[in-house]
Amino acid sequence: MNGAQILLATLTRNGVEVCFANPGTSEMPVVAGLDEVPGMRCVLGLFEGVVTGAADGYARMADRPAATLLHLGPGLANGLANLHNARRAHSPVVNVIGDHPGYHRRHDPPLACDIEAVARPFSQWVRTSPAADSLAADAAAAVAAARTPPGQVASLIVPADAAWTPLTADPSPVTAVPPAPAPVPGAAVDAAARMLRSGETAALLLGPQATREAPLELAGQIAAVTGARLYAPTHTARITRGAGRVPVRRVPYPVDQAVAAFGDMQNIILVGAPPPVAFFAYPGKPSRLSGPGARVHELARADQDVPGALAALRDALGAGGAVPERAGLRLPARPAGALTPGKIGAALAASLPENAVVIDESITTGRSFLADTAGSRPHDWILATGGSIGYALPCATGAAVACPDRTIVVLESDGSGMYTPQALWTQAREQLSVLTLVFANRRYQILRDELSNAGVTAAGPAARALTDIGNPAIDWVALARALGAEAFRAATADELARCIDAGLAVGGPAVIEVTL
Amino acid sequence: MNGAQILLATLTRNGVEVCFANPGTSEMPVVAGLDEVPGMRCVLGLFEGVVTGAADGYARMADRPAATLLHLGPGLANGLANLHNARRAHSPVVNVIGDHPGYHRRHDPPLACDIEAVARPFSQWVRTSPAADSLAADAAAAVAAARTPPGQVASLIVPADAAWTPLTADPSPVTAVPPAPAPVPGAAVDAAARMLRSGETAALLLGPQATREAPLELAGQIAAVTGARLYAPTHTARITRGAGRVPVRRVPYPVDQAVAAFGDMQNIILVGAPPPVAFFAYPGKPSRLSGPGARVHELARADQDVPGALAALRDALGAGGAVPERAGLRLPARPAGALTPGKIGAALAASLPENAVVIDESITTGRSFLADTAGSRPHDWILATGGSIGYALPCATGAAVACPDRTIVVLESDGSGMYTPQALWTQAREQLSVLTLVFANRRYQILRDELSNAGVTAAGPAARALTDIGNPAIDWVALARALGAEAFRAATADELARCIDAGLAVGGPAVIEVTL
Repeated sequence: MNGAQILLATLTRNGVEVCFANPGTSEMPVVAGLDEVPGMRCVLGLFEGVVTGAADGYARMADRPAATLLHLGPGLANGLANLHNARRAHSPVVNVIGDHPGYHRRHDPPLACDIEAVARPFSQWVRTSPAADSLAADAAAAVAAARTPPGQVASLIVPADAAWTPLTADPSPVTAVPPAPAPVPGAAVDAAARMLRSGETAALLLGPQATREAPLELAGQIAAVTGARLYAPTHTARITRGAGRVPVRRVPYPVDQAVAAFGDMQNIILVGAPPPVAFFAYPGKPSRLSGPGARVHELARADQDVPGALAALRDALGAGGAVPERAGLRLPARPAGALTPGKIGAALAASLPENAVVIDESITTGRSFLADTAGSRPHDWILATGGSIGYALPCATGAAVACPDRTIVVLESDGSGMYTPQALWTQAREQLSVLTLVFANRRYQILRDELSNAGVTAAGPAARALTDIGNPAIDWVALARALGAEAFRAATADELARCIDAGLAVGGPAVIEVTL
Repeated sequence: MNGAQILLATLTRNGVEVCFANPGTSEMPVVAGLDEVPGMRCVLGLFEGVVTGAADGYARMADRPAATLLHLGPGLANGLANLHNARRAHSPVVNVIGDHPGYHRRHDPPLACDIEAVARPFSQWVRTSPAADSLAADAAAAVAAARTPPGQVASLIVPADAAWTPLTADPSPVTAVPPAPAPVPGAAVDAAARMLRSGETAALLLGPQATREAPLELAGQIAAVTGARLYAPTHTARITRGAGRVPVRRVPYPVDQAVAAFGDMQNIILVGAPPPVAFFAYPGKPSRLSGPGARVHELARADQDVPGALAALRDALGAGGAVPERAGLRLPARPAGALTPGKIGAALAASLPENAVVIDESITTGRSFLADTAGSRPHDWILATGGSIGYALPCATGAAVACPDRTIVVLESDGSGMYTPQALWTQAREQLSVLTLVFANRRYQILRDELSNAGVTAAGPAARALTDIGNPAIDWVALARALGAEAFRAATADELARCIDAGLAVGGPAVIEVTL
């Protein structure tokens, strides 16, 4: 048994059973090890952003880490943007990054760079394993780091000689022992209870551990007896929602709307979420979204026992018998005629299959989609947490691997989709049930909007050109087919409804270019 | 005038007249400034790897920096892999990276990360400009850093408020004053001359400043009177070659072949190149490619006056009147029949237009292409310098912007091409004369080869699957057309020759899927 094999055995022993991979020469011992060590499903990506985004999507749905397999510093670099999203989502991820042996690296060969330095801004844990005999312990430490609450990005650098060298030590995998989430102190619960009993207005800002079905029930009971509003951050990791679930408001993306939403809240209680802050800064607009007189209280940090804190708060409020508000099933009629965002939202709301997982990168087109689908069949909704563009197609790939029995629906923009279209190929290769709607408005509409936020009243020709992606128009149908996916085009609401039906029936990946 | 405008005015004043851009909200003041400050051509990329690779290609052909415009840490991250190639090519590049204002960044909004830390492993110069009034000096310093011999990657981080705030200081652009390359000491020249006069075998390893037409003439004269062999590193930035040029051997990529090439060299003289080192480490194979008894002498560092050192050495050897060997024009007959690498090389050799720029990422298919084209019409040849995959299509985009009167020919692999296919869209948008041949062998052939180098005699099913990209087969014709390029398919040598003619006649981007 060599280092690569004990690495794989340790990962699988600790529940890491999927590896999204784009390997190179220095990772060949690990690739060869896949044929010697059972239990690891390897999913190939043609680009590293697909690999890391898939690991993020897998983690959000499976609640456990996948591994990635990446090729030295540049391979890792290509995956960093989606690791940024994973880090912000608290997704557990174990990156395995090959490197030159130390004796080779000191000659500064062309591919060499400081991989630890590359990994560090996007990882909570970074380690270079020095030798084959250290790989069992280091792989277990990486899994433990990834599973450290609330979930972390762990980057394990594996020099090729550590991977190819036979073990001299005990060839047994090491068991990872991640810490449990810390309990929330009673004082934090009591303070929140006092706020909620005060008669003042209050909002609960729910982090990603709080927007799953069970903790949402608790939050809903709290809201039922106190009148508190339930909010999720604009870009949250996953919300379990739809008919029968406790509804949550999303903090609006536009700063003015977000400030208005929080403006009359005297108390904001953070439930595993950071204080509400604007996504971008603009001249003359605030960074903090809470009003100047608002009191912000942290009930639970993200690394603490967030569901436990909600349960304790519910009990402190005597709300154990309360019946929370739940969304009713509201399926709109299928729309017809010219496409508008509202009609797209209605088509979506009517069509979402039970238990669908929606990956939303629809940016400007999709501003109303969450509201539109509040009464759809039960589903999960996933958003880009770190603002790195190009997350949805990869994230969907990983979510589909994690949830083979659920339909994945991607709400994609034609601008955002072009950062990582390679994900469609992996979806086709693995025959994943992913339906992607690409909203083709042929421009970076958000930047048109942001130009005016930056004080530019009439964009000049240069600014218009840099926000125009319609010359040439990207043919998403041809692009999807080139990569092995089925594809359709919809230019009216009727066509969209029919294409959604057809796409859902494909049984593998399908893309609908929604021509706006 | 605001910070963004003085930034643009300073860049253009200092000869930075092209900006490859993928901007976001925090860069909108710069985008708006393009309509206020004349002289900057902005070229949009749909993905940041296209942007940075284009800046690399532009620099290799224009010998001056382009700017990039990138969106915070994740946008920069997507461009790092091609910055790695640029850094290894000594390409001058000025990255302009937007950031949040400091007052906003301290709230840790979703997109925030440590941009300086992200930039540093791939930049020789990193600075965050603190305010609008510092942007003239900082932009000039960035250009000076980029133009510091032999060429560097400079990353200037521009917080949005520095960009949008009106100047209070003198609104005049600052002139960049890069240092001149240091002269090479006479002792280094004398030592090299003694080696070359000793009667021992010698090789000159020529770095990127030494493989242009004029310094190659000098090296050719030195070789003519001393019998020294002329080598370029396996992955060098640019070689000026073809009929009439002094021929240079390329250090072979396979370690055994490289060791054999240097095995009988008693002296290796480095001319702005690092000592020859294997690209990867393999069990039982050396890192250094020079023999154990070889003396390695540095005539000139890359940051010194490399052409001046060659001239001094030529004069010290009294070779001023020598006539160097020059490649003769040898245009093979157009091949016919089934495709082989040799026939592809012959088709290429026969077809390369005068003054073409070849961007080579053909990996395994193209091992013989440099030799095959040694007698083609005069041209330049560009290789991936840092081993980051996905450089060729972006690099070609930048080279075409730098050289609108030359034809760019990309030799691409179907694996490598899938890292940054978005470059085809920019080529179509800008109507760049880029002909791309995609060698579609439907696998990562180099990894199949490397598995055996790693001691795996028979790849198992998992290893075969991870090196197979034929399921589904990527349709490069559909992909290219989806992105606005013309496209052809060639399955025989006859078809290839006809497709090359047709592709060269397009006048914009064209792609040939060469089905192997």
